[in-house]
Amino acid sequence: MKFGLFGSAQAKRGQGPDVDSAKGYHDFLEYNIEAEALGFHSAFAVEHHFTGFGQVSATLNLMTYLAAQTTTLRLGTAVMVLPWHNPVLLAEQAATVDLLSGGRLDFGVGKGYRYNEFEGFGVPMEEAADRFEESLDVLTRAWTTDEPWSHDGKFWSFKNVLVEPPTIQRPHPPFWMGAGSPNSIEGVAERGYNLLLDQFAPISVALDRIAMFRTAVEKRGRKFDANDIGLARGLYVAKDEADRDAAIERRMAARARVDKMAQRPDGANKASIMSYDDTTETAMEAALFGTVDEISEKIARLRDGGVRYMLLSDGGSGIEGLRRFSAEIMPAFADSDAAEAAE
Amino acid sequence: MKFGLFGSAQAKRGQGPDVDSAKGYHDFLEYNIEAEALGFHSAFAVEHHFTGFGQVSATLNLMTYLAAQTTTLRLGTAVMVLPWHNPVLLAEQAATVDLLSGGRLDFGVGKGYRYNEFEGFGVPMEEAADRFEESLDVLTRAWTTDEPWSHDGKFWSFKNVLVEPPTIQRPHPPFWMGAGSPNSIEGVAERGYNLLLDQFAPISVALDRIAMFRTAVEKRGRKFDANDIGLARGLYVAKDEADRDAAIERRMAARARVDKMAQRPDGANKASIMSYDDTTETAMEAALFGTVDEISEKIARLRDGGVRYMLLSDGGSGIEGLRRFSAEIMPAFADSDAAEAAE
Repeated sequence: MKFGLFGSAQAKRGQGPDVDSAKGYHDFLEYNIEAEALGFHSAFAVEHHFTGFGQVSATLNLMTYLAAQTTTLRLGTAVMVLPWHNPVLLAEQAATVDLLSGGRLDFGVGKGYRYNEFEGFGVPMEEAADRFEESLDVLTRAWTTDEPWSHDGKFWSFKNVLVEPPTIQRPHPPFWMGAGSPNSIEGVAERGYNLLLDQFAPISVALDRIAMFRTAVEKRGRKFDANDIGLARGLYVAKDEADRDAAIERRMAARARVDKMAQRPDGANKASIMSYDDTTETAMEAALFGTVDEISEKIARLRDGGVRYMLLSDGGSGIEGLRRFSAEIMPAFADSDAAEAAE
Repeated sequence: MKFGLFGSAQAKRGQGPDVDSAKGYHDFLEYNIEAEALGFHSAFAVEHHFTGFGQVSATLNLMTYLAAQTTTLRLGTAVMVLPWHNPVLLAEQAATVDLLSGGRLDFGVGKGYRYNEFEGFGVPMEEAADRFEESLDVLTRAWTTDEPWSHDGKFWSFKNVLVEPPTIQRPHPPFWMGAGSPNSIEGVAERGYNLLLDQFAPISVALDRIAMFRTAVEKRGRKFDANDIGLARGLYVAKDEADRDAAIERRMAARARVDKMAQRPDGANKASIMSYDDTTETAMEAALFGTVDEISEKIARLRDGGVRYMLLSDGGSGIEGLRRFSAEIMPAFADSDAAEAAE
């Protein structure tokens, strides 16, 4: 199995001697730099806006900085929210990261689901799907066309453009797309993209989605590769039960705060990521929060269900948790990969 | 005097074993990293699009990568062309570079002047000034407002937004603005921004502009500081006269190519940067192309005319030219600064 990371940095606001706004960003960088040394495969970062608590907004800039400090780590976005971006500028920015990093960009894309972001950017939520489609068309064309081209779409027009610089990865950096509903999962397979699965779905739900994606890919005559699915999971390597339980409570409180921002005033936000019940049991079942043994047991369940690539989101055990994960958990699962390869 | 750099990287297009698209970008980075060690104060990079010869498009991404590889070098844009960008996304991106670099961003801005870029982005050239104004308003507000705010403008609307992360520099990274005409120079002084002067104006024209800016600043009751003006100049440290003359010819050919892209179909592009005559004499007079002695003599003229900060654009003598500049030219002018400080 492969393990990557999924997360964000936090830049505190305010001034004065006690506030080092940059600290959260530099902590994020150090965490990911050490993760590379610990054997992690990738780091995916979110894109969010206007939260008031400092989530990463300029994701490709942060990942560009990380690119300069790493050599093998795949650099992912999870996800770039396409309705906010001019697709030609975004193609240029992503190509620049891909070029500078030696072809390490994993380009995760999404439609967006938080109401406050649509409101902030003045983009009607109803346009999200159409904007997403048009943006993907433009991005793909921008990366794969070597002669000047034009585009006259519903939201964007470009005339006689040649998008530079070229990407290193050919035909372009791999697209990763989040999906939860059966329709969305079919859509990802139809596009030939890789699949990102969220960190909140119960294990059984996540495994069902993997099976769905496999069927959808094979139905289209392609070979299924479980490495094309990144399953996100919260990680907290706990000292003991009480430590674990306190971490789960904190996780649920943070999640409630985000859900509040994401919700529409009419309460009609139907994003699958907002569809799970908010009980402690569900949160506990989905997350890799626990002792080394508890976490290993869950990963074994996921592996047996077909998971090959997991993206871990730090639930608070930080770099020390990552070190323990790398030393005490990862080796057992790396072995199962080697065993498979030897079969 | 202070010396910085002004330039671009070039990413070649095409595939195959002979094309290393990333080489030009990595050469640019190495050049600037060494420049920092050689005593250069800053590196400013252009933003251009759709050229077909690989000029830098995602300027802030490239400068983010350079930020990670340097520690004291100021990181400048010369210039971000505001009409292409969503000003809130741009504010977030620039703030991220400023944050990650420890407050080293010099934010150069412009309206754009190349016809092919306006055509490419589908932005009427006639809207450039209004878009520029609105974008500056939004950028400034985004960087200086700690509570959610809204904006309902001619080109952009934002509602209840709080732009994150915060910048390190307060109240915000310094704005630098290119100007050539008397009106534009007045405008830069009126805004309280720093001034960028182009590399093509003859020395006498450049000195007139500096005098104009000084008058405009002092007229507004502010103290004039010559460090607030960055004068761009081409640099080519030549072996001999023939080497110098060949470099000037290459420079003029490259400039003709850019002018062609910048020109409107009706030939009515009135940008001051396109107003100089295209004779060898003018090109030779403006550029620091020559032997060490010739270059030193020109810099002395500029210094005596009030220039304190120059941005050198590589005319082809590359890193070796920079080393010679640092070793054989810079010390004489660094002294004059120290002498002034001692006065």
